[in-house]
Amino acid sequence: MMMNVPFRVTSMLEHAERYFAKKGVTSRTMSGIRNFTYREIGERTRRLSSALKRLGVQKGERVGTLAWNHHRHLEAYFAIPGVEAVLHTINIRLSPQHVAFIINHADDQILLIDQDILPLVEHIKDQIPNVKAYILMTDEDQLPQSPLQPMYHYEKLLETGDPDFEFPQNVDENDPVGMCFSSATTGNPKGVTYTHRSTVLHSMLLGLADCGAVSESDVCMPVVPMFHVNAWGLPYAATWFGSKQVMPGPQFTPKLLAELIEMEKVTVTAGVPTIWMGLLREFEQKNYETSSLRAVLCGGSAAPKGMIRAFQEKHNIPFMHAYGMTETSPLVISTRLKSYQIDLDDEAKLDIKAKQGYVVPGVEMRVLGANGDVKWDGNEMGELLLRSNWIADEYYNDDRTEGTFVDGWLHTGDVVTVDEEGFVKIVDRTKDLIKSGGEWISSVDLENAIMAHQDVFEASVIAIPHPEWQERPLACVVLKEEAKDKVTKEEILDYLKPQFVKWWIPDDIVFLDEIPKTSVGKFLKRTLRDQLKDHYMTTAKS
Amino acid sequence: MMMNVPFRVTSMLEHAERYFAKKGVTSRTMSGIRNFTYREIGERTRRLSSALKRLGVQKGERVGTLAWNHHRHLEAYFAIPGVEAVLHTINIRLSPQHVAFIINHADDQILLIDQDILPLVEHIKDQIPNVKAYILMTDEDQLPQSPLQPMYHYEKLLETGDPDFEFPQNVDENDPVGMCFSSATTGNPKGVTYTHRSTVLHSMLLGLADCGAVSESDVCMPVVPMFHVNAWGLPYAATWFGSKQVMPGPQFTPKLLAELIEMEKVTVTAGVPTIWMGLLREFEQKNYETSSLRAVLCGGSAAPKGMIRAFQEKHNIPFMHAYGMTETSPLVISTRLKSYQIDLDDEAKLDIKAKQGYVVPGVEMRVLGANGDVKWDGNEMGELLLRSNWIADEYYNDDRTEGTFVDGWLHTGDVVTVDEEGFVKIVDRTKDLIKSGGEWISSVDLENAIMAHQDVFEASVIAIPHPEWQERPLACVVLKEEAKDKVTKEEILDYLKPQFVKWWIPDDIVFLDEIPKTSVGKFLKRTLRDQLKDHYMTTAKS
Repeated sequence: MMMNVPFRVTSMLEHAERYFAKKGVTSRTMSGIRNFTYREIGERTRRLSSALKRLGVQKGERVGTLAWNHHRHLEAYFAIPGVEAVLHTINIRLSPQHVAFIINHADDQILLIDQDILPLVEHIKDQIPNVKAYILMTDEDQLPQSPLQPMYHYEKLLETGDPDFEFPQNVDENDPVGMCFSSATTGNPKGVTYTHRSTVLHSMLLGLADCGAVSESDVCMPVVPMFHVNAWGLPYAATWFGSKQVMPGPQFTPKLLAELIEMEKVTVTAGVPTIWMGLLREFEQKNYETSSLRAVLCGGSAAPKGMIRAFQEKHNIPFMHAYGMTETSPLVISTRLKSYQIDLDDEAKLDIKAKQGYVVPGVEMRVLGANGDVKWDGNEMGELLLRSNWIADEYYNDDRTEGTFVDGWLHTGDVVTVDEEGFVKIVDRTKDLIKSGGEWISSVDLENAIMAHQDVFEASVIAIPHPEWQERPLACVVLKEEAKDKVTKEEILDYLKPQFVKWWIPDDIVFLDEIPKTSVGKFLKRTLRDQLKDHYMTTAKS
Repeated sequence: MMMNVPFRVTSMLEHAERYFAKKGVTSRTMSGIRNFTYREIGERTRRLSSALKRLGVQKGERVGTLAWNHHRHLEAYFAIPGVEAVLHTINIRLSPQHVAFIINHADDQILLIDQDILPLVEHIKDQIPNVKAYILMTDEDQLPQSPLQPMYHYEKLLETGDPDFEFPQNVDENDPVGMCFSSATTGNPKGVTYTHRSTVLHSMLLGLADCGAVSESDVCMPVVPMFHVNAWGLPYAATWFGSKQVMPGPQFTPKLLAELIEMEKVTVTAGVPTIWMGLLREFEQKNYETSSLRAVLCGGSAAPKGMIRAFQEKHNIPFMHAYGMTETSPLVISTRLKSYQIDLDDEAKLDIKAKQGYVVPGVEMRVLGANGDVKWDGNEMGELLLRSNWIADEYYNDDRTEGTFVDGWLHTGDVVTVDEEGFVKIVDRTKDLIKSGGEWISSVDLENAIMAHQDVFEASVIAIPHPEWQERPLACVVLKEEAKDKVTKEEILDYLKPQFVKWWIPDDIVFLDEIPKTSVGKFLKRTLRDQLKDHYMTTAKS
């Protein structure tokens, strides 16, 4: 009937080599900014593929990268799938123990390493005995002394490679091409394996007019690291569609990003909220020419409404909120006003843009509450379930697969509401949700309300077992220094009462000196729950 | 690794029902203009699916439509694949004999027919004995008298259908969903069968920012008939992406199209050059508000440069030239200036836009000349070969498959040149090309040059066997009435000489009273070649 041409990651680079040969990458490495055309990137990638093959990389084997956003990392993105191996982009911000764990769990055969990341790998060298070779992505002429052996010089390796290496054409589109690990709140990171099919379809998604709209006319700067869900797939899409790419390299301060936006006339950039907070602060310090920007894509965690407002109203920069996970490639939900919402007032539009958005074409969603699929009323809460060709169906060799991937659906662990238009808003994590008398209470909503109180420094609301109601909310509150011993529980509770239905109000408040936190500053609710698990068992009885 | 969710045509409608329930279709039928939301279209489609099922339609069977562009036809687009049957959109502009042939060749079980097309089907009723039922898509309350039996009333059939009918979810993405026939220059039309996979991927293509950019914010009016390669796939893409659709119905005069553009604020429309010539003439007659238009897509045959100029320069309407065939779903090549071509002068940009363009993402191209792959110099000619997931790999039960689909490539039969940027320009059909001494000569280029002569009414250049050169060009020329018997062969040849290399110049000219033509006005070169096949065998000997 119709041709069945397998999806193939390297076909995207081939398209760029042929039709966008003059376009390319502006890459900032340790030693400065350099430009490469897609013709050059293509040739260098082919050289790298042939060199990897000569180093013995076999089909299906994993090759790891520990690298920032630059042209060599982009070459690895295609060269590793180009020998039918699996690109494992390693999150260098994990603890050294976790980095060693995922290198071993993935069974990486070769590691490609940036020079400034070398000390991290040297530090764990005794824990990763199965790695057979190291390739240093360096700008220097000579390799440094290193206990990591054998070590190859990236550029010299390329010199020995074949510039006409032919990428295998008859691949199975369901073969693996990529691997990323998702950090878990407990235990080791969990691995996800992407395929040709998932990668090419996700790249196509990013070109859709309503979902990224990556175009030949774009200048695309991924600030999100290439080890963070493949920089959200932008390097693949931007190459395929012939966008110019700006790779910000190893250090990206707000100042540097602002300068690159101005200098390279960046049209689309992507990153997490903390990056954009920093950029806003930089914009306060100095005027930059940013009129080229057509979209700031923001994901990773929820963007505060004030930040969206500042970008749109103060700096006239369109801001696009999106939602995804390592398990989802990542783009599955994005916020875009529907055409008939354009006439809403600014505040109503901001409220919509502060939501995560609705599912993109090719993704199906269910939201399962206490009593099945929730009503789309912006109120009823349920866990977000997703299905798509660019969503994993398992963790790599990991028994945590069970419970997350059930009957063909990814259970995200995110508790959301859905409004009448299908816009999703994350209200909690399932494990932090309070299940009280068959109804659900969002810990996040309560926390945000308490933290808005003028005397509160920080607050965490947790679910505590209750003899009658199964669980009840308990508020853990840290008062500002000057308010300590002055503000009472009753004052906080009275403050909350007008804002919530009665049964949402915490039964009690515990004043603490600080909320325990993870290494990245997130509340360690698990610790709090352990410490306070008997609170209502004793108080309810008394 | 990753979920493998089969591509499925009905998933696109489901997405519209869920996320674009308030958007929909403005449909013009025999009785006027009506509006339907996607929620309504979804419900009506489900009713139609369940009714078709009750009428006995089985998986894989073909159901034919003979209908214009309106909401009911759109419902059939989804309802027929919705019972795993095959939507066969019948080109009602074919001869009655060919219409009967394709109904029989496809083995259509049921026909859905517009009221004004009923006479055509009644005319051929004795030739299509296998059709089991007829469904009349009528605005009238009652069915007319008709010899076609059994006949069902579309709206009454819907009333009996199940509004909650569930579309099968676990389809094979390579199962057939659609069928179109391509008219052949000789013999019967050739059938092509589309699949879920090809249809969904082609729809996704139309959403890419650089290839149609179909968006929720669009108002999309397909003027190209829904029986012409599925209106180029626009009804599927526009539904999936939540665009408003404007369906112009049974009669679409230039005046009506201009009024719809103005009234409905159409943003994107698509059709063949003759439609746009008519619209330009209408624009000359009367002023219309057309500023909503962001793209006029043009395909089917080459758009004259003057027409592109008029749209862009005179009316400030962006014009997009595209290339495709029934065999290619159809979009495979489109013209879009590369970002660094924007600064060229207007004439150079028009020259680029008058070319067919370069291949879209997901399509591979080869151009095979006399000596293998041609140079991309805008000069060397070769046959265009294409490969993609939305290109057929065979004709339906037709031995003409051989010779067209070879080693995984579609041989288009179009002779093209490719410039340095990869832009394709069609210069001839392979069968009309003149192969002289191992080199190729474009009959079309010579014809255009001769027809530019002030005394020439029309001209056709054909390949004639030659004892020494294999083939040589022969020009068949019809002079204008006032020039007859006054202009000589030598004058025409002298006129050509400065424009072409010497060996391109026809060896002889034959003056005719008229050029034989097909029913749609194309030159019948085959007839000319048959009549004149011995011309050089005798003249070269003498």
